[in-house]
Amino acid sequence: MAGSTWGTLLTMTTWGESHGKGLGVVVDGCPAGLPLCEEDIQKYLDRRKPGQSRFATRRREGDEAEILSGVFEGRTTGTPISILVRNMDQRSRDYSEIREIYRPGHADYTFDAKYGFRDYRGGGRSSGRETIGRVAAGAIGAKLLESLGVTVTAYTRSIGPVEISMDRFDPEQRFANDLCMPDALAAEEAGRYLEELMEGQDSAGGVAECVIDGLPPGVGEPVFEKLDARLAHAVMSIGAVKGVEIGDGFRAASSTGSANNDRFVTGPGGAVAKAENHGGGTLGGISDGSRVTVRAAFKPTPSISRPQRTVNRRGEEVETVIKGRHDPVIVPRAIVVLETMTAFTAADMVLISMSSRLDRIQKFFT
Amino acid sequence: MAGSTWGTLLTMTTWGESHGKGLGVVVDGCPAGLPLCEEDIQKYLDRRKPGQSRFATRRREGDEAEILSGVFEGRTTGTPISILVRNMDQRSRDYSEIREIYRPGHADYTFDAKYGFRDYRGGGRSSGRETIGRVAAGAIGAKLLESLGVTVTAYTRSIGPVEISMDRFDPEQRFANDLCMPDALAAEEAGRYLEELMEGQDSAGGVAECVIDGLPPGVGEPVFEKLDARLAHAVMSIGAVKGVEIGDGFRAASSTGSANNDRFVTGPGGAVAKAENHGGGTLGGISDGSRVTVRAAFKPTPSISRPQRTVNRRGEEVETVIKGRHDPVIVPRAIVVLETMTAFTAADMVLISMSSRLDRIQKFFT
Amino acid sequence: MAGSTWGTLLTMTTWGESHGKGLGVVVDGCPAGLPLCEEDIQKYLDRRKPGQSRFATRRREGDEAEILSGVFEGRTTGTPISILVRNMDQRSRDYSEIREIYRPGHADYTFDAKYGFRDYRGGGRSSGRETIGRVAAGAIGAKLLESLGVTVTAYTRSIGPVEISMDRFDPEQRFANDLCMPDALAAEEAGRYLEELMEGQDSAGGVAECVIDGLPPGVGEPVFEKLDARLAHAVMSIGAVKGVEIGDGFRAASSTGSANNDRFVTGPGGAVAKAENHGGGTLGGISDGSRVTVRAAFKPTPSISRPQRTVNRRGEEVETVIKGRHDPVIVPRAIVVLETMTAFTAADMVLISMSSRLDRIQKFFT
Amino acid sequence: MAGSTWGTLLTMTTWGESHGKGLGVVVDGCPAGLPLCEEDIQKYLDRRKPGQSRFATRRREGDEAEILSGVFEGRTTGTPISILVRNMDQRSRDYSEIREIYRPGHADYTFDAKYGFRDYRGGGRSSGRETIGRVAAGAIGAKLLESLGVTVTAYTRSIGPVEISMDRFDPEQRFANDLCMPDALAAEEAGRYLEELMEGQDSAGGVAECVIDGLPPGVGEPVFEKLDARLAHAVMSIGAVKGVEIGDGFRAASSTGSANNDRFVTGPGGAVAKAENHGGGTLGGISDGSRVTVRAAFKPTPSISRPQRTVNRRGEEVETVIKGRHDPVIVPRAIVVLETMTAFTAADMVLISMSSRLDRIQKFFT
Repeated sequence: MAGSTWGTLLTMTTWGESHGKGLGVVVDGCPAGLPLCEEDIQKYLDRRKPGQSRFATRRREGDEAEILSGVFEGRTTGTPISILVRNMDQRSRDYSEIREIYRPGHADYTFDAKYGFRDYRGGGRSSGRETIGRVAAGAIGAKLLESLGVTVTAYTRSIGPVEISMDRFDPEQRFANDLCMPDALAAEEAGRYLEELMEGQDSAGGVAECVIDGLPPGVGEPVFEKLDARLAHAVMSIGAVKGVEIGDGFRAASSTGSANNDRFVTGPGGAVAKAENHGGGTLGGISDGSRVTVRAAFKPTPSISRPQRTVNRRGEEVETVIKGRHDPVIVPRAIVVLETMTAFTAADMVLISMSSRLDRIQKFFT
Repeated sequence: MAGSTWGTLLTMTTWGESHGKGLGVVVDGCPAGLPLCEEDIQKYLDRRKPGQSRFATRRREGDEAEILSGVFEGRTTGTPISILVRNMDQRSRDYSEIREIYRPGHADYTFDAKYGFRDYRGGGRSSGRETIGRVAAGAIGAKLLESLGVTVTAYTRSIGPVEISMDRFDPEQRFANDLCMPDALAAEEAGRYLEELMEGQDSAGGVAECVIDGLPPGVGEPVFEKLDARLAHAVMSIGAVKGVEIGDGFRAASSTGSANNDRFVTGPGGAVAKAENHGGGTLGGISDGSRVTVRAAFKPTPSISRPQRTVNRRGEEVETVIKGRHDPVIVPRAIVVLETMTAFTAADMVLISMSSRLDRIQKFFT
Repeated sequence: MAGSTWGTLLTMTTWGESHGKGLGVVVDGCPAGLPLCEEDIQKYLDRRKPGQSRFATRRREGDEAEILSGVFEGRTTGTPISILVRNMDQRSRDYSEIREIYRPGHADYTFDAKYGFRDYRGGGRSSGRETIGRVAAGAIGAKLLESLGVTVTAYTRSIGPVEISMDRFDPEQRFANDLCMPDALAAEEAGRYLEELMEGQDSAGGVAECVIDGLPPGVGEPVFEKLDARLAHAVMSIGAVKGVEIGDGFRAASSTGSANNDRFVTGPGGAVAKAENHGGGTLGGISDGSRVTVRAAFKPTPSISRPQRTVNRRGEEVETVIKGRHDPVIVPRAIVVLETMTAFTAADMVLISMSSRLDRIQKFFT
Repeated sequence: MAGSTWGTLLTMTTWGESHGKGLGVVVDGCPAGLPLCEEDIQKYLDRRKPGQSRFATRRREGDEAEILSGVFEGRTTGTPISILVRNMDQRSRDYSEIREIYRPGHADYTFDAKYGFRDYRGGGRSSGRETIGRVAAGAIGAKLLESLGVTVTAYTRSIGPVEISMDRFDPEQRFANDLCMPDALAAEEAGRYLEELMEGQDSAGGVAECVIDGLPPGVGEPVFEKLDARLAHAVMSIGAVKGVEIGDGFRAASSTGSANNDRFVTGPGGAVAKAENHGGGTLGGISDGSRVTVRAAFKPTPSISRPQRTVNRRGEEVETVIKGRHDPVIVPRAIVVLETMTAFTAADMVLISMSSRLDRIQKFFT
């Protein structure tokens, strides 16, 4: 089945494998008139690039985005925007070992079970490079939201057992440290934690958080297309994500009604506002005008240098060592993926929300 | 937007409000030839009924399902199955207060913001009664899965701070206590916890868990229609759910690669199996043949008898007391909703998975 | 697969068989605030009822619509509108013959081939009664369009070889004669033609036409969701339709560019208008502000009283006579189906068109 | 709205403008294991190329397809297949005139009305070059069908008033003459007709026909996703198509039931067969095992060299002459578009049809 398209009015269709000719995305349904150039996309792609960091692989990826359609004289035309990123690193390697075995924690076995064979070069479609298309598309979603006064921001909340302190929250730190942690102290501590793991040829997981500010109330569709349900879908579709929370999430489960209910209060200009935000910006799956908060749990990088037990394609038990240098933690490079998937999903739902009231539709057409 | 339809090949379209004439669902795309009668649906609906329990409202709901179409001579025909549940409890009440104020933790305000007005009788479409359609549809999904050797089972994992012990796990207990907890001791303790809260006019949250057994490997579609992404969407769309986990979920975020990776081993008959199941039955979003585990965090019942601060429709701050008897916790009655939504979603994805390999398609048509 | 849902933002999901308990539809995505009552739907349903006419079956069908949800205090709430029509005529009949044979021109064989068995009572899901759901839903689509200044009108264009004359076009005649022909003379002639056929135990086909007036320019989405492509889909999905035209349709194929191109002219108030309308209101699949014209070719009623050659379920050739009284022509009762399917489809596309321009979206949200 | 994606399980998402950097398509949901190379696609693209013919523009288009993803070791992997065709002919031209006026019969005005501005270079997204993506995708659909024993064949049925004779039908002629007419005499006559028109700076329309052979019975989903409804959608979405017929189409409207009903007979091996095929291979929207016939009416090429009256962007009436050389008829180059859209649509519906019967599904999974 066609599982590579996401969205209803605003859609992205991603394609590409880690070691094929390239990766890309077609964004369809973007309203006409949005100023857009390659730099708008590149700055998001650059954030997911591996780099100089101690905690990211040294593989050199150019990942330069080329816009092939849908933009004319600097603005979107309303027709599909095709974005292409050529793979630079296609040199033939020796995949003879990875080809025969199923790496633990990877999709090697399930792709084989599903398709009868697989592209064994570096994970193929299940590689982290698949997110290039999402990020490129999400950059457009983010820009569209910005033009409507909505901003989306993601950062690392925790790495392994090390969590940021909300008291020390410093947005500048998001880009100041390798780990995208908006808390310098936590970043330092997490860095030490990662170095220990790397020595032990091991890896860490972590939690990323994303907030949407400025979203008008009324976005999200009951019953199955609730804003939080769509966000959960979008976020859980990111590789390595194993949990999603809205607002207080699992903490709400051990709270009480009197503590968890957000009180409504009279806001500026007599508007309805809330005194708290345990709910994370939605009520009944519809945005309530307060900040929307989404959280994602990422599992530890499955590629570790330690010898591991597994089986080969014939089902025989073997020991394997995954060669190459691996990121000790996925979260820092996944921040921009979470941010752009959230932005894209919210942008789609903002457009969808326009048709909910007859009086506004009548006004629109007159 | 039409947000009341769920699924791709197998769909449910639910409808109805808490105090309207009735609620129901249209299930479309169910394969022809499945034995089906009203009792198959009723037994699931009965599980979500409020009842004799100390921990559920005493309102009498008949909730009898009538199959209006799609079944002939005891078997599904392949055409839409329409199921109707008439509301019994439609007597006119005094809604004058609830009509003017926005209850904290409810969707009153967001529905008003979205639609310009709302059905203020008992929550309308955002009421828990909305799940009747889901459960009726999911009962068919569960039966379809059973006919393919797949079973789906949900239960309460925790209420407030009280969690079941996996050592004491007793499946019989699921139906033996009011709280659907498969651990008699935990159920007792949780009961005491709830009674305390009820005395204090407060409510509790909790966590529900659902497992799928027997799912063949290869179910789930990369990239956006991963099995876990679809499950997250389905589960987060259930009212009051604020978090979703697959497998170890958020615990994976503080684990390490060496501990979190599931080792592949040679299983019975030389098949590929796993020694652990931290991943919760999926790899790369595709089922790996092991048990699939989904977890949902439910917030505390927002309706509590305590006076609460809020605003009215004119934005003025007021104090309100929500009258009537309320469930002190949502989880026990939501268990069957989680189970049926999971079953339905998995059933759809099983059908979808049939078109992934040309060799099997060729065999199918010859 | 779930083939009973139509639309994107505004959807209908129909269900029901000719001899089951009832038929109905769930309309989802209707904007909130539209005044709606059962009479709005009933007046359309009454137009498809068989009746006193010489040219329609005498079977008594009450076909009374009950709105079960989605309307509160006389207005739509934005949530699903469920409409139920109970079947009155469920008395057990002797289907022993029809059960075993495949009626020529009917879907008996193809349903059996697809589903392995079928509901043989009067055609089941493939009966003309299936259109009840469409008409009820389309009535809502038509009312929504009306509230935006758009009207949709269908009528009979030809029956067998007898076509209306555009010179004698008289809209009043649509409801004045049994055949919905807006030309009294043609109706008379067509009546004589049908009586001849009825004497010979035969039936006629015909062409229906539908026009949309007041549709703003800009409705329809390139490339696959063109307004005319969606209309063609909607119209071809009506039972017995074998051809669809937009504007001049097949006549355009034998025309020339100089004759077929519609000249743009300066319209009232300096607006862009057209001097002709061969195109039928669309250019590049997008409405151009002129009248949209759709035409549908209906095959002759396949049920005729003459003995016919066919095969039974065992593949043996047999002769069959289809008992009962049959409409000698489908078109007059299908007029309201064409009109409502057109209205519903256009209404959905009007909502969809709201997200095409950023400047208008920005204005909408401020 | 995202209108550039077509299909359910097997989808194509096309993109690109006539004078942008390139055009292409992403095909998603293609089953794994289908042998595929660029030549498979190129041979279809070559059929839509303008060329040496007297009746096609001389513009040189290389139109070479590059497969960027989804194929590994010569076979499809089950993941998205991205195909890119770079535009060669991007030299800057003088568009000053076309930029300001609305060409009659083109989508210039409607794009402006919809999007607020347009890509005025050669039609942008509404250009005939848009079909490159469809054809490339449809080539894959055709190959998939072939692997299941289904073939799809299109040809010119008429040009202007000149129609082929079925008595002289010669499949070899499809590729032997410039007009794709399977009747040498008709091709000659049509050639003369076109030359006359060209002298008069005018253009012609025509009818194309497409047949599907070998389609198993049971393909097509009641009610809205009938095989013929989907085909009508697909075909009407092709630029310049104004009418679609299945089987006898509009001729059925003037026929009688006794003449139009196809008799079932005992076929080879006792299978159910038909003595006639007025229905064009479907009954109730489901394939009946006989040849499926689709027909499309194409309007005359709107670009003609004659001076034409129109308006400019300010709504002022002007006279315009469309420069350059234009095809005097669209049909011959559209044949491959009709063929591939039909193939792709049928392939999708074949996959969809696999989930209609429980017994076959049970067998599939065991």
